[in-house]
Amino acid sequence: MRTLKLTLAYDGTAYVGWQRQLNGTSVQQCIEDAFVPLVGDAGIGRGVAGASRTDAGVHAEGQVASFECELGLDTGAVQRALNIRLPPDIRVLAVDEAPARFHARFDATAKSYRYRVVTADVLSPFERAFVWHAPGHYDIDAMQAAAASLVGQRDFASFQARGTSLLDTIRLLSSVEVSATANGFAIDVEGAGFLRHMVRIIAGTLAEVGFGSRTVESVGQALVARDRRRAGPTAPAAGLTLLVVHYGPRSGT
Amino acid sequence: MRTLKLTLAYDGTAYVGWQRQLNGTSVQQCIEDAFVPLVGDAGIGRGVAGASRTDAGVHAEGQVASFECELGLDTGAVQRALNIRLPPDIRVLAVDEAPARFHARFDATAKSYRYRVVTADVLSPFERAFVWHAPGHYDIDAMQAAAASLVGQRDFASFQARGTSLLDTIRLLSSVEVSATANGFAIDVEGAGFLRHMVRIIAGTLAEVGFGSRTVESVGQALVARDRRRAGPTAPAAGLTLLVVHYGPRSGT
Repeated sequence: MRTLKLTLAYDGTAYVGWQRQLNGTSVQQCIEDAFVPLVGDAGIGRGVAGASRTDAGVHAEGQVASFECELGLDTGAVQRALNIRLPPDIRVLAVDEAPARFHARFDATAKSYRYRVVTADVLSPFERAFVWHAPGHYDIDAMQAAAASLVGQRDFASFQARGTSLLDTIRLLSSVEVSATANGFAIDVEGAGFLRHMVRIIAGTLAEVGFGSRTVESVGQALVARDRRRAGPTAPAAGLTLLVVHYGPRSGT
Repeated sequence: MRTLKLTLAYDGTAYVGWQRQLNGTSVQQCIEDAFVPLVGDAGIGRGVAGASRTDAGVHAEGQVASFECELGLDTGAVQRALNIRLPPDIRVLAVDEAPARFHARFDATAKSYRYRVVTADVLSPFERAFVWHAPGHYDIDAMQAAAASLVGQRDFASFQARGTSLLDTIRLLSSVEVSATANGFAIDVEGAGFLRHMVRIIAGTLAEVGFGSRTVESVGQALVARDRRRAGPTAPAAGLTLLVVHYGPRSGT
């Protein structure tokens, strides 16, 4: 038995998300389907485990997945075999050998996401699938000040999708940075773990601060309240991209 | 009567090209359809004239179109009204007043196109609709040397789509530049006029030079031969983007 570490990029527009669902095609299913000709149906075993269970419409530049298999091909040949079978909106960027017990999700020490917002009046056709178009004037400094109140070990119960039953809502964010771009702004979030919709609710909340429709202080107050209604709206999935997954030396990768 | 100058960007993937066709939706038709609620069917008159009749699948960052109409709205209101009605893969970047006899195509003094090639083994999902994926090692210097032989007033009969009946095949190219990019190369072509498929045949021919499957000298020889079979293949439409259309002071724009 051998454990492979896959690094993946995908345009999430056409998918129901990373995880297998009954209502449409998932990225996970596409990867597993591409493995079937190599390992057989039985060889799929427990399947391909993704570091981040990205939502429908969310993109990835550096998703990581792990897969246990018995397969004689070298890593380059596995990469080529998968890319030939995968649709062009999903690409395997790298295949590496990983230690026997490596698990892409459980071994991840941190993940970095970028949320992109175009604030210009007109949205370029070339960016439309990868950003949130929210025209207007935004105060970057105010957003950055509000972002700072989210850094550290915090209870993010207010920044979790409604209807989620998760009890432990404490997560550690190591950084939340807001920066101006050519036609809007980007929010970079790095953390050890995330609740459902957490980055998108952070983006929706910070955008309200930047637009002037909520105060900088209200963001810290929303954290304390542990009430989803105190945070801002969930920003659209298209604006979110998983940039990179980090692993510590103990994972051996 | 008033003449409007429209600056347009579009992702050409879904269209049969700029010009109206019977076999699918054109960009021109979308723009004219968006004008109908503003000027009525009768107000479309001679229609919207585009500077470049881009092929199916070719993109534009700065297409220019002219339109004669009687319309009371200011240019900003026209832009907003069009963008509300247009699909998101076509955007009006600007609307300007133009002199009465301004014609986007006949008054254009030059057009700039970029042809993008990704030579890396793996094509990013985010670039896939906007480049030609031609993996391999390419000699940029050789391509640039061959490109130089295309600059000036030349007979481009060998660089014209087969089956084109155009007799005057002399065109003036002011520059053809090949530059390395992060994952491949780009070919920038500027000229006063172009034959059908000319930029794509130039791209296909220079790529052969870069790949080593034809000599630098063969490009100048292909020009002299006036024979389509002496030039290289027509590179895919997806890699081509119309960047900008230039007008002289006489056009008044």
